[in-house]
Amino acid sequence: MQSGTKVSLFLSPQLPLKLFSLYFCEEGQLLLIKPLIIMKKYPLPYYAVIFTSIRTEGDNGYADVSRQMMDLARQQEGFLGVESARQELGITVSYWASLEAIEAWKNNNMHQIARQKGREIWYRSFRVRIAKVEREYGFREDLL
Amino acid sequence: MQSGTKVSLFLSPQLPLKLFSLYFCEEGQLLLIKPLIIMKKYPLPYYAVIFTSIRTEGDNGYADVSRQMMDLARQQEGFLGVESARQELGITVSYWASLEAIEAWKNNNMHQIARQKGREIWYRSFRVRIAKVEREYGFREDLL
Repeated sequence: MQSGTKVSLFLSPQLPLKLFSLYFCEEGQLLLIKPLIIMKKYPLPYYAVIFTSIRTEGDNGYADVSRQMMDLARQQEGFLGVESARQELGITVSYWASLEAIEAWKNNNMHQIARQKGREIWYRSFRVRIAKVEREYGFREDLL
Repeated sequence: MQSGTKVSLFLSPQLPLKLFSLYFCEEGQLLLIKPLIIMKKYPLPYYAVIFTSIRTEGDNGYADVSRQMMDLARQQEGFLGVESARQELGITVSYWASLEAIEAWKNNNMHQIARQKGREIWYRSFRVRIAKVEREYGFREDLL
């Protein structure tokens, strides 16, 4: 497997995250599992946390902690899934079953440490919006 | 000004879109104004349309129509702003004053034609979520 190779992995329908990009380092070891999209429908209403950010220059340990936080978020009760993209602007939308689940994740000790580093080091600016998803529809989701 | 040069433009605080990327073609003419982020706070609650998509291969006229739709959206009553990023996955979040404003934009004739082409040509898959923004907070927005 070449460095930077991307493959799609289809997981159990019980898992909220269905489509991933896998990145392998030169020795063929798995380097990063990056969630692409959540395709599962959740019962309405549920909640979206829209996190919009502009990064500072350089990685400064961001990629490692970001992956750790993604792994940790998946273990939280009420976590449904996450979608993320970055160009100049980064947008990460995470989905949760309830406001209580969002609050518990916000107060998670490891997450609080990461959030503090975000303000000190990684982000030039960000905004967080908490929104109740009331309607949704899709197109050709079965093809993914 | 070189082709592909990006500069930041600070506009009047009355405008909902504050930070842009400007793209110039070789003759120095403005090619594209791409909104980076909306930094203005709107009275709560307002609405977010979270559009998550995976594109088909090739441009096929997408960039032109996408720009036209962005310009047209800005003219709609109740349009507040838009944020967008794409890697493998594209996320565009547009913000609206009311559900009625979202519905009117969905039914706009030009937008309906573009949406049809989206299903036929540009998107392999997408999902649209309509969510009521109930809470928000930010960090260092004054620096942008």
